[in-house]
Amino acid sequence: MSEFFGVFPYLVSPIKANGDVDKTVLAELVEHLIASGVHGLTPLGSTGEFAYLTAKQRFDVVSTVVDAARGRVPVIAGVAATTIQDAVAQTQAYLGLGVDGILAILEAYFPLTDAGVESYFRAIAEAAHPTPVVLYTNPHFQRSDLSLPVIERLSHVDNIRYIKDASTNTGRLLSIIERTEGRMQVFAASAHIPACVMLIGGVGWMAGPACIVPRQSLALYEAAKRGDWQLAMELQRPLWRVNEIFAKYSVAACIKAALEMQGFAVGNPIAPQQPLNHHAREEIASVLKLVGAL
Amino acid sequence: MSEFFGVFPYLVSPIKANGDVDKTVLAELVEHLIASGVHGLTPLGSTGEFAYLTAKQRFDVVSTVVDAARGRVPVIAGVAATTIQDAVAQTQAYLGLGVDGILAILEAYFPLTDAGVESYFRAIAEAAHPTPVVLYTNPHFQRSDLSLPVIERLSHVDNIRYIKDASTNTGRLLSIIERTEGRMQVFAASAHIPACVMLIGGVGWMAGPACIVPRQSLALYEAAKRGDWQLAMELQRPLWRVNEIFAKYSVAACIKAALEMQGFAVGNPIAPQQPLNHHAREEIASVLKLVGAL
Amino acid sequence: MSEFFGVFPYLVSPIKANGDVDKTVLAELVEHLIASGVHGLTPLGSTGEFAYLTAKQRFDVVSTVVDAARGRVPVIAGVAATTIQDAVAQTQAYLGLGVDGILAILEAYFPLTDAGVESYFRAIAEAAHPTPVVLYTNPHFQRSDLSLPVIERLSHVDNIRYIKDASTNTGRLLSIIERTEGRMQVFAASAHIPACVMLIGGVGWMAGPACIVPRQSLALYEAAKRGDWQLAMELQRPLWRVNEIFAKYSVAACIKAALEMQGFAVGNPIAPQQPLNHHAREEIASVLKLVGAL
Amino acid sequence: MSEFFGVFPYLVSPIKANGDVDKTVLAELVEHLIASGVHGLTPLGSTGEFAYLTAKQRFDVVSTVVDAARGRVPVIAGVAATTIQDAVAQTQAYLGLGVDGILAILEAYFPLTDAGVESYFRAIAEAAHPTPVVLYTNPHFQRSDLSLPVIERLSHVDNIRYIKDASTNTGRLLSIIERTEGRMQVFAASAHIPACVMLIGGVGWMAGPACIVPRQSLALYEAAKRGDWQLAMELQRPLWRVNEIFAKYSVAACIKAALEMQGFAVGNPIAPQQPLNHHAREEIASVLKLVGAL
Repeated sequence: MSEFFGVFPYLVSPIKANGDVDKTVLAELVEHLIASGVHGLTPLGSTGEFAYLTAKQRFDVVSTVVDAARGRVPVIAGVAATTIQDAVAQTQAYLGLGVDGILAILEAYFPLTDAGVESYFRAIAEAAHPTPVVLYTNPHFQRSDLSLPVIERLSHVDNIRYIKDASTNTGRLLSIIERTEGRMQVFAASAHIPACVMLIGGVGWMAGPACIVPRQSLALYEAAKRGDWQLAMELQRPLWRVNEIFAKYSVAACIKAALEMQGFAVGNPIAPQQPLNHHAREEIASVLKLVGAL
Repeated sequence: MSEFFGVFPYLVSPIKANGDVDKTVLAELVEHLIASGVHGLTPLGSTGEFAYLTAKQRFDVVSTVVDAARGRVPVIAGVAATTIQDAVAQTQAYLGLGVDGILAILEAYFPLTDAGVESYFRAIAEAAHPTPVVLYTNPHFQRSDLSLPVIERLSHVDNIRYIKDASTNTGRLLSIIERTEGRMQVFAASAHIPACVMLIGGVGWMAGPACIVPRQSLALYEAAKRGDWQLAMELQRPLWRVNEIFAKYSVAACIKAALEMQGFAVGNPIAPQQPLNHHAREEIASVLKLVGAL
Repeated sequence: MSEFFGVFPYLVSPIKANGDVDKTVLAELVEHLIASGVHGLTPLGSTGEFAYLTAKQRFDVVSTVVDAARGRVPVIAGVAATTIQDAVAQTQAYLGLGVDGILAILEAYFPLTDAGVESYFRAIAEAAHPTPVVLYTNPHFQRSDLSLPVIERLSHVDNIRYIKDASTNTGRLLSIIERTEGRMQVFAASAHIPACVMLIGGVGWMAGPACIVPRQSLALYEAAKRGDWQLAMELQRPLWRVNEIFAKYSVAACIKAALEMQGFAVGNPIAPQQPLNHHAREEIASVLKLVGAL
Repeated sequence: MSEFFGVFPYLVSPIKANGDVDKTVLAELVEHLIASGVHGLTPLGSTGEFAYLTAKQRFDVVSTVVDAARGRVPVIAGVAATTIQDAVAQTQAYLGLGVDGILAILEAYFPLTDAGVESYFRAIAEAAHPTPVVLYTNPHFQRSDLSLPVIERLSHVDNIRYIKDASTNTGRLLSIIERTEGRMQVFAASAHIPACVMLIGGVGWMAGPACIVPRQSLALYEAAKRGDWQLAMELQRPLWRVNEIFAKYSVAACIKAALEMQGFAVGNPIAPQQPLNHHAREEIASVLKLVGAL
């Protein structure tokens, strides 16, 4: 059975003007999300701007989240690197902080062979053992991708037990589920329709939008979980609007802007990313109002 | 309400060595599919190799299907062209044969503006009026695509009432459904999981694989239709293997090879397309056996 | 030695409102280009909108050009099809009209294997024998491409003696020249800098822009031909602006608009292609004036 | 006039098993290249695996190269980051080591607006002032690209005086040259034919292959520089084979393997990149022998 399931918001990373992590704001956000009933927390996903943070900032983000969560929900920290050595070092550092799982992300500059891709994830799993590892695959942002045969092989590593696929191709998720025969549980990403992924056997979703609509996400999860698909779709329809704006606007900029509207002073995306303009903010506000999140 | 719904197999186009359409084989296939319970028939989709047929061959394919169907199920014929003039001529020719709907496909060589795309589909709808039109969008094979704003605008044309989206992006279907507010019904393509598309409000699917697993497709449709999602997923899981091989091998080559195995002498894909090799045929055979279709 | 060399304009296809080819205007254009000194003529390239013409229109275009040229310069007619059967039929028809060469274009809907691609071009070469064949490769507009190994193999077919590569990758042309060791001569396309292609050993260019700047193209060719690279680059620099606008605006729309400005009533691109707007026409006019072509 | 011109090899980064930069080997390589006559040195380009190095390793690479060069040739250090803050810190660090120029590379995770791209390069130029900056654009490996309008605007910044474009599109280089009217000098990349780029007005090339064929590169540069285009092309033809294998095999793996064959113990590419297999090494060896570099 699965120890991770349900709604895991990807947390943003609030950074102060002097470059320090704003631990107060981040802890408030953690408290709010746990109070809203989320099943777990994921710092350092794409939404967490891992690609824009220093090693020190990443460490402080994870440390703050673990401390604020106080064991009430599992914390799965994102590890992202181009080299095996860096990935292993990050994994060890976050395990030392007490995280409950690792979200393993491969950054690439040059194309990699399947053997190279596989060696990267195996090294993280070995360093994390026996802590569970969630594979992360995002063909839009990474320059490398996990092929189905590599996923199948990695599913036999005993602590690689989950995958989060951020493509828009929901059929690929069903192929993964069918091919790994229970060895690997699937989390949806924001580009998938959560209700559909639950229908085909997914265990939940890890996504940026859950950060700004946690209660609504929970209600959808519960309906799907108990097989009330009619209610699930009633809840899903308006919520899809949140995913649409998340896809339309730059990910971190969008979620940070929405959280600011909700009273969390998480600031702007890190430069040279640009904050959203007035028109985009208006559109986000109207969608938040539509789903009762503002 | 929707006059088209359910399972519409895309028919292959059997062509004899001398270039004539093999009307006997095609009529047998039509008879077999209607006997299997399909809700309609679609000649001249991608699977029908419309891009490889002469105007005469296309006409003979549609004529044969309409004659063989004898009004028992609706026939929706594919119209595909680069020019408005050719598309309108095809539409008129097929209406003259008594088709019940037009599947409108835009081929492009040079990129088109949204206005150009829109004018093409409006011209077909006008020529077909009041016969219903199904928009077809396939970002993989066409060199042009229907954007969401264009789809929304076209949904206000009174006889454009359906869309068949052949991307792998199921979220896009939900966006279309939400945005067209009932004016446009959605059919799934083979790249989507039919059960998921039914869940979000689709009315059925138009797809090549239904040609080789019609009974199984029907059972899945019926389960989804009456909201028995558990059964739907039980039926869906093995059937997804059929979609996987369809995506893996060249579309027409795959369906023609499978139909040959099932006793329909539909021949090879049209040259320079190559017939599948022995290994591919073995894989297709094993999948057909798995789902009870051989 | 090479029987084809120099500047071959791709001709536009002027079509009257009733769908007939405007033979008068096309013949005038042919006369003008020959008077301007071009080395040959190419009807039914991309610029000739082959993808938008009926078989009858294509035939009339080639027939008109052969008649108007009266043997003064070679005519190389474009053959474009998805099937071998259609390509062979077109080849035979144009040979019957007396063309001096065939420009062989592969249209594809489904992806092809290298073996399928090779069989297509071999069939055209066999049908054309001993008339020379020019391979045409355009990764932007065709859905299939000629790989270097296929090009190398085809270079051993005795009447496949030229290639026109419409990618933007000039290094690929040098790889072709080096690998085919004199068996295949290279023509540049509008996306390459003609002076560069001449430097590396090309024999000329086949391109839409030559239709609107024939004299200027000739001067550039002559300078490059006699190794006066300093003059060649002086002529090349302003001419590159013509290629830039050709790349910026839709190909046929751009050349047709420019020819209209120069007094040739070639009309609009075929619908649903849209004519250029006022702003684009102004930009084209200013570039034509810059190079002395208006 | 241009203070940077000629052949600038991109240096590899030799890393020892313990993660330290192998300063001895790197200094030997620098000495060898200067003795071979190169006009400058570029540590931390793509070939230098900047994307796989820690900040400490990057610093040590630049420091070693500056020390070994002893002012005999200019050193242009690569600065690559996702954030403005990191890019500025790297720039300041390398300026403190005495580099003569900055090669400015933008890494992106999320797509950026043109304004975001522009702000990044302006910040580096300001931090480097008055040291000259070379813009680096590589649409294959970066997830962001410099548009022509952005390049034109940046060409007005007084110390942004060069651009190295690593696309395969040589026409784009001519567009840049024409549009920046002498404010920006162009260096070729390994995907361009150096002789062609010199012909259209380039000032040299920055490329990985120059690391393994420095003398041959110099001879080509000198021939092109004095306008002896016949000799330039005689030298260019066999050298193009080196660029072809560089494009075929993973960049750092290829150059490191070739340098090992030439007696420089630079080691393997950094994991999870894989070393080349035997077959690839054989092919590289045969090309090196062909051009007299082994």
